[in-house]
Parts: sequence; structure tokens; C-alpha cells
Amino acid sequence: MKTLLKEILHNPLLWLLAFVPVVFAAAKLKPEAHTLLFVLSVLAIVPLAALLSHATESVAAKTGDAVGGLLNATLGNLTELVIALTALGAGQYMLVKASIAGAIVTNTLFMLGASFLLGGLKYHVQEYNRVSARMQAGLLFLATMALLIPSAVAKDDFAAGAAFTQKLSVGLALLLIVAYGLGMLYSLKTHREMFASAEHDEAGETPWPIGLALATLAGVTVLVALVSEVFVESVQKAAETFGMTPAFVGFIVVALVGAAAEMASAFSGARKNRLDLSVGIALGSASQIALFVAPVLVLVSYFIGPTPMDLHFWPGAVVMILIAALTASLVTVSGRSTWFVGVLVLMVYLIFAMTLYLLPPRSQ
Amino acid sequence: MKTLLKEILHNPLLWLLAFVPVVFAAAKLKPEAHTLLFVLSVLAIVPLAALLSHATESVAAKTGDAVGGLLNATLGNLTELVIALTALGAGQYMLVKASIAGAIVTNTLFMLGASFLLGGLKYHVQEYNRVSARMQAGLLFLATMALLIPSAVAKDDFAAGAAFTQKLSVGLALLLIVAYGLGMLYSLKTHREMFASAEHDEAGETPWPIGLALATLAGVTVLVALVSEVFVESVQKAAETFGMTPAFVGFIVVALVGAAAEMASAFSGARKNRLDLSVGIALGSASQIALFVAPVLVLVSYFIGPTPMDLHFWPGAVVMILIAALTASLVTVSGRSTWFVGVLVLMVYLIFAMTLYLLPPRSQ
Amino acid sequence: MKTLLKEILHNPLLWLLAFVPVVFAAAKLKPEAHTLLFVLSVLAIVPLAALLSHATESVAAKTGDAVGGLLNATLGNLTELVIALTALGAGQYMLVKASIAGAIVTNTLFMLGASFLLGGLKYHVQEYNRVSARMQAGLLFLATMALLIPSAVAKDDFAAGAAFTQKLSVGLALLLIVAYGLGMLYSLKTHREMFASAEHDEAGETPWPIGLALATLAGVTVLVALVSEVFVESVQKAAETFGMTPAFVGFIVVALVGAAAEMASAFSGARKNRLDLSVGIALGSASQIALFVAPVLVLVSYFIGPTPMDLHFWPGAVVMILIAALTASLVTVSGRSTWFVGVLVLMVYLIFAMTLYLLPPRSQ
Repeated sequence: MKTLLKEILHNPLLWLLAFVPVVFAAAKLKPEAHTLLFVLSVLAIVPLAALLSHATESVAAKTGDAVGGLLNATLGNLTELVIALTALGAGQYMLVKASIAGAIVTNTLFMLGASFLLGGLKYHVQEYNRVSARMQAGLLFLATMALLIPSAVAKDDFAAGAAFTQKLSVGLALLLIVAYGLGMLYSLKTHREMFASAEHDEAGETPWPIGLALATLAGVTVLVALVSEVFVESVQKAAETFGMTPAFVGFIVVALVGAAAEMASAFSGARKNRLDLSVGIALGSASQIALFVAPVLVLVSYFIGPTPMDLHFWPGAVVMILIAALTASLVTVSGRSTWFVGVLVLMVYLIFAMTLYLLPPRSQ
Repeated sequence: MKTLLKEILHNPLLWLLAFVPVVFAAAKLKPEAHTLLFVLSVLAIVPLAALLSHATESVAAKTGDAVGGLLNATLGNLTELVIALTALGAGQYMLVKASIAGAIVTNTLFMLGASFLLGGLKYHVQEYNRVSARMQAGLLFLATMALLIPSAVAKDDFAAGAAFTQKLSVGLALLLIVAYGLGMLYSLKTHREMFASAEHDEAGETPWPIGLALATLAGVTVLVALVSEVFVESVQKAAETFGMTPAFVGFIVVALVGAAAEMASAFSGARKNRLDLSVGIALGSASQIALFVAPVLVLVSYFIGPTPMDLHFWPGAVVMILIAALTASLVTVSGRSTWFVGVLVLMVYLIFAMTLYLLPPRSQ
Repeated sequence: MKTLLKEILHNPLLWLLAFVPVVFAAAKLKPEAHTLLFVLSVLAIVPLAALLSHATESVAAKTGDAVGGLLNATLGNLTELVIALTALGAGQYMLVKASIAGAIVTNTLFMLGASFLLGGLKYHVQEYNRVSARMQAGLLFLATMALLIPSAVAKDDFAAGAAFTQKLSVGLALLLIVAYGLGMLYSLKTHREMFASAEHDEAGETPWPIGLALATLAGVTVLVALVSEVFVESVQKAAETFGMTPAFVGFIVVALVGAAAEMASAFSGARKNRLDLSVGIALGSASQIALFVAPVLVLVSYFIGPTPMDLHFWPGAVVMILIAALTASLVTVSGRSTWFVGVLVLMVYLIFAMTLYLLPPRSQ
């Protein structure tokens, strides 16, 4: 407990934890103040996500490379998963899908681009292990196909759609999880030497004792779930107040909130010329959401939520994910980066954000 | 003749030749037993394709590199060509097009992916000549454009379509054949030193005497044509019995049957760490079908078949071919492969196959 | 003046300047002879473009690298800009957009492909600085996204379109200009050493004295503007006489006329084994039109022309630009070229040209 307190005092981001009790109090006292609740829940989720991610890494550090890698790979996006599960339980499928697509795009383009830019402003040219980057880009590309093909092939026939889409979604979800599992086997077991420099990810942060880490993991997950409920309930109404379209909220706002903690690590890695770390977090996180979080949500939707969820995404979202995956593939061919590469990647993200911000609500 | 018999006794695949007389007998006696005829004709085509391919290689080996390369390049997919011509004569354009698209996709994704996987399970990392792979990927990309652009550009206007599509198809067919011819000039003549390691393709198999090879080529082509007739007549009805959609049959079943012999060679090459051979067969075969077989079918359709055939493919097929070409381009950038690269490529193919299998028949 | 005359006598291309007075005379005397006026104006624009480009380079050579690079980067496509401004003033938005899209595609595919082919016919393998090529390809890719995303995202909703498209177009135009400016900062300032070999572009041509260069720049721009007016007025009617579709004229004819002078330089560079120069001109010109000329036209359309112009392009044009950018990205991965690479790139262009030539006019 003392370690935890020390950590909190040491890390200004964690001071935001003060907002956790505030958001619960506000939700009780002023359940109609959507904008206030939205702002408070965002401020509360960010430090909780940071705690979750540190706890996961601490457990991973204690359990050895293979199990640790597995843990990191499955719990690394626990925040996104819990937010999405809460939205799923509330039957808000549009928000779930928008936040999945947004998280993939935001991690691939914004986190990667900003890492390149921030690192490039300090170092003339930065190099990173492209084996790892290309594997993640390949996984992302695969997930994109799983979202693209069903809608491309069944395009002209909406009537026959529902049952077909449902069955296909379950099949594709299983396929993606298998691909993700094999990817872990590949990078953690059979060809781990190729992924060498990405391994000392945790260097620089002291891992917590295992008991504290596990307790934090459990306790904070519950807190995130509770805060997420307030967040999901308030986000759409608050967005209207701010003049944002629902698409912009799901894609950009929720994605940025969910990934705030990872971004802090990725950017700090880039500034320390450890671009392997940044690229690994950005693309690893994106492929994890596409190949693990999204399929798990599809499968879980058969047990919670009013009706099952499918993998049929809004065409605009599929195009954006496709472009994000293609951009990641093209950018990581060389394994070198400069500030301008970051600018190019960020500009693609800005084009998406601008389009979504201006999009009239009806057309989504 | 003795050589031929020895070959047949030696190669268990060729024992399937026993099914050739059986299929003719069955077609005479039970013309309505579609499922039986379908199974028998598949079992008969596979060994015939293997014989055809060995005969072509033997003639090629005797006639010297340039003529031999030319022969291999034009007759290498004789089985697919004969099956497609039979379907063309029967006016089954949908089946012809599905089998062309399916053959391109199956060769690019299934044959390439399975070669990578089978080789990778035995060898940690395999290297291959990427010059050749990238040239074939480039040709495939070009063929994809020839299928994509007409439908992308003329999208909104179906009325003006028929005459336009017909004229354009002939023009594009000629363009693709010219590109294919120039590709041969490039790889066999002006820059052959770049394609070095792909040249001892035939090593390991003893070529037949030229007389036997030519006789086999002629005789087996006639047999393939006759069996194809039974196959084409029975395939759709048999598919219904098995609960397969017509799209799945054309794309997957026909393509796998037509390419069975080449697959045997490609996979055996991969297991012997001769990945150049496997990549050459897989991508070479795919680009040959796209740039030679398909255009020839368009031109030939003016002489046989009820009406001319065009190059206008079902949009879903164009998307799949585009993705196959893009996957081949991205995967062959490095010239190295491991088992996981094979898994990724195979997974894309599985996504296609699963979608087509579940697709309700009306939406094609 | 004497230098100018000597240059003109020395360079056969410039003898075509004789057509400048002829076109003005013809426009006065025979305003209805569209075909004649079209042919004359083409013959007059080509040498004017050559003069403009030489004058720009001379000013650039005198003003030092940074300012010079800036000048080249902004005035390098002055001919295209003036033609487009004339068409804009005449309210011919279809022609403006077709000529922008056509110029991007023609520079990327035709100029690059023909340079590869012409160089490759003389040299076995040619190498070039791929850093520069990949940066230009990246910029092009970015511009493509700016054209693609708005239509992909707003696809299903045409009613809400006008105001949305207008606002978004202005935002995207500003974004593209910023990206273009940062690209110049990158290649001329912060990372100029990476672009080394592309720097002695002007070698081989003697720069003019600054006074002559500036006077030529001013005088010839006015002449181009005047001739463009005749060109824009006559082009559509003349095209009908030749049996060309409007899409073919805008995309192919206008683009080839506007880029004639640059093509002469690019091709001569390729024949001298200075492929850096050719690739720089081709891709640099394409990205300049996409990221500078097109956005400037959108912004300028608020001041001249009947109504503002947006960045919403005909879907077929977007697909072609996307394919051109993708082809450039894939082709420049290696930094090496042979004649066959040129053939592949030119074939993609031929597919576009053939499709547009045969396209029935209604479907554009």
C-alpha cells in the first residue's frame, strides 16, 4: 500500500485519482448534469487506466516472459475492453463499434504519428525494429480484411444480411482470436529473438510486488467499470452540448480517453530515443483491439446485451481502418523515422478527425 | 510408354488415373448422378493435371531455356484453360469468371501461404529471390487494375454498359497479353540473370523423352477436355447437394481442383527449402491466369460460346483479387519468410472462403 | 534579350513560339474554328511552358537553395495553375477538376513510367535516391486521403452534402498546403542531406541573368494566360470533333499539354542516367499539383468564378489518383529501375486512358 501511495505522490497523472470519488458523488447528486459527468468521468478514467497498465506490467514482470507477454497482450487494453463492455451492456452498439474502430485508428495513426514527431523533433533520424512493426501491421491488415470482405462481398443484398452477418461474425471473430494467439506464439516463443529490442519494455519503471499488483488489477478494474458506466451514459448528450457529432465522439474522444495512459508511455519512449517501445505500444495496441478486444466483444455479446453484436461496421469506419493499416504498412517498410514521417501520419489522422467533426449527424 | 508406366507406378498420385475410364463409364450409365460424377471427375482431373504439367516441363527442358520458358509460361495452366474453355462452350460465364478469379486468389493466397507455412514449420527462416516474386506481384497488380478500373469508372451508369464493356474488354485483354509477353522477354531474355535461382525449377524430376512428352501433352489434353465436360455439367448440382453456394464452388472448389498438381510441386519445394520454386509456381501461376488465360478466354469467346465474354467481374471478386495482389506485394517486400507469414496469408484466404461459404446464394 | 534569342534558336522546341501570335490572330479572325484554335493553342502552350520552367529555374539558381527551392516548388507548375485558373474563371469546374486529377495521374504514371522505360532501354539497371521518391509518394498518398475520405465517409447522404463538402474542402485545402510547406521545410532545410543527389537538378542548363529571368517569368505568364483562354474555350468542342470524350480530354489531353515541358526534362534526365532528376520532376510535380495547386484553386475560387469550388472529385478520378499514388509507393520501395518497371507503370496509365477514351459521355 505504501508503494502504491508513493507511486501516486510521485506521478502527477495519478493525482487525477481524486476525481474518482468526485464522479460517483456527482452521479448520485446531479444525474442530469451530463456535461459535468462526462468531464469528470474522463478525468477519472485517465489515471485509472495508468494504474491498470502499471499493474498489468508488474504482474507480467513477475511471471516470466511467456506468461507475462500473454498477460500484457490480453490485459493491455483492459480499459478499452471495460468501457466497451459497459456500452455493450447498455445496448449502445453504435458506440461500441465506433470506439473499437476509433481505438484502432487512433492508436495506429495518432499514437504512432505523434511518437514519430515528438522523437523526430529531438533526434535527427530514429531507427526501430521493423520486424515487430511489420508483424503488427500484418495482423492489423488481416483484421481489416475480416471487416472489409463481408461488406464488400455481400454489398448488394441487404435483405439476406442479418443471419449471414451474424454467423459470419462469429466465424471471423474466432479466426481473428486464433490469428492473435498464433501471433503471440510467434513473437514470444518460436521467433522471439527477432523481436529482441522490444523486450525491455518495462525498463525504467520499478515493478510492484505481485500481491499489490494483483489487488490493484482487480480493484481498479471494478472502478473503471463503474466510472465507465457514468461515462457511457453521459457521453452522447455531453457531445451534443459541445457541438460534436456522435461519430466524432465515438471515434476520437472515447478513443483518446481510453488510450491516454498508453500514449503517455509511447511518447516518453519516443523522447528517450526508444522508438521500439513507442511503435510496439501503438501498433501492438491497435492490433490487440482489432484481433482480440473486438472479437471477444462479439462473442460476449451473446451472453450480455439485448441482442448479439456483429462485425458489420459502417463503411466509412472500414475505409478508415483500411487506410490506417495501409499507412502503417507503408511507413514501417524502412524501420527509420524522422519528424516529417510523423507529420504525414498525423495529417492522415487530422483528415479523419476533421471529416468526422464536420459530418452532418444524419449521414452516419 | 515404358517410362510413362514406370512414372505412374512410382507416383501414388497417378494411381488416380484409374478414375478416368470410371468417370466416362459413369457419365454414360448414370448421367443424372451429379454428385457421383462430380467426385469422380475431380478424382480424374487431378492426376491428369499432374501428367500435363510433367509433360510440359519435359518438352520445355528439351527445347532450351527461351522456348522452354515460353512453353511453361503458356501451357503451365493448361488444365485451368481447358476447364474454362469447356465452361465457356457451355455458356456458363459465371462459372468461367468465378474459376478465373478463384484461381488467381487461390494461387496467390492459398498456395503461397501454405508454402510459407509448410516450409516455415521445418526451417526457422527461409529466403527467396524477391526480384522474381515482386515482378509477378507487379504483373498481378496490373491485371487487377484492368479488372478494377472499368467498373470503378463506369460505376454509376449501367445502361451505357454493354457495348462499352465489350470494346474495353477486348482492348484490355490485348494490353494484358502484351504485358505478359514483355514480362517473359524481361525474365527470360534481357534481365534473366536477376531471376537466376528460379531457373533450376525442374531439377529433381527426370524429363521424359520428347516424343513421349509431346504425345502425352496431346493425349492428356483431350482427356482433360472430356473429363472437364462431365465436371462442368455436374459441379453446380453436386454443390447444392453438399450445401455449398455456387460462389464457393467456382472460387474455391474448381480452383483447388485445377491447381492440385502445381500445389504438390510448390509444397514439396517449400519442404526442401527451395522456396524460390514455390513462390515462382504460386505467383507465376496466378499472374499467368490473370494476364494470359483470362484475356485468351475473352478473345476466344468471340469464336466459341453463345455470346462474347467480357472482363466485367462481380465487384466482390475484384475486391478479393485486389487484396490478393496487395497481400502478395506487401509480403514479398523482404524476400524472407517464416511460418507466421504463411499463417497471415492463409488467414486472408480463410476469410474469403468462410465469407463465400456462408454467403446466401441470392447476393452474388 | 540576346540570351533569350540564342536560347530560342538553339532549342527546336522553342521554334513553336511562332504559334503564339498565330493563335491570337486565329482567335480574332475565326472564333468558331474550334478544332483549329485547339490545335494552335496546344502548339503555343508547349514552348511557353518550356520558357516558364527555364525562367523559374534561373531565378531559383540565383536566389540560393532555400528560396530557389521554394520558387521551384511553387512556380514549377505555373502552366497548369494558369490553365486551371482560366477554366475556373469560366466556371468550368468539371474541366478544372479533370485537369487536376489528370495532371496528378499523368505525372505519376506516364512521366515516371516513360522515364523508367526510356532510361531502361539504354541502361541495364538504374538507381535513384529513394528517400526523395518515397517522400513525394507519401505526400501524394496524403493528398489522396484528403480526396478519398470525405466521399467515403459521406457516401450515403447526398442531401446533407453541399454545406458539409464546402466547409470540409476549405479545411482540407489548408491542411494540404500546411503539409506541403512542412515537406519543403523538411527537404530544403532540416533533412536536406538526405535529398542530396536530387539537388543538382539544374546542372547542364545555363541559368539566365536574373533580370531576363524575371521579365520572362512575368511576360510569359501573361501569354500563357491569354493562350489558355483560347484553349479552354475550344477544347471541349474540338474534342467532340476528334471523337474524344470530355473525360479523356480533361484527364489525358490537357494534362499532357500542361506537362509537356517537364516531360522533356524528365525524359532527357533518364536518357543521361540521371534518374533522380526524372523521378524528382515526375513525383514532385504530381505532389505539387495535389498539395499546392488544387488547394490554392479551392481557396481562390472564393474570389473568382461564379461559385466556390470544392474538393469533391468524381469517384472514378479518386480511384485513379489512389492507384497512381499506390503504384508510386510500391514501385519506389527499391530505388532501382529497369525497362520493365517502366512498362508496368505505363500499362496502368494505358488502362486508364483506354477506359476514359471508350467511356460513354453520360457516365462521367
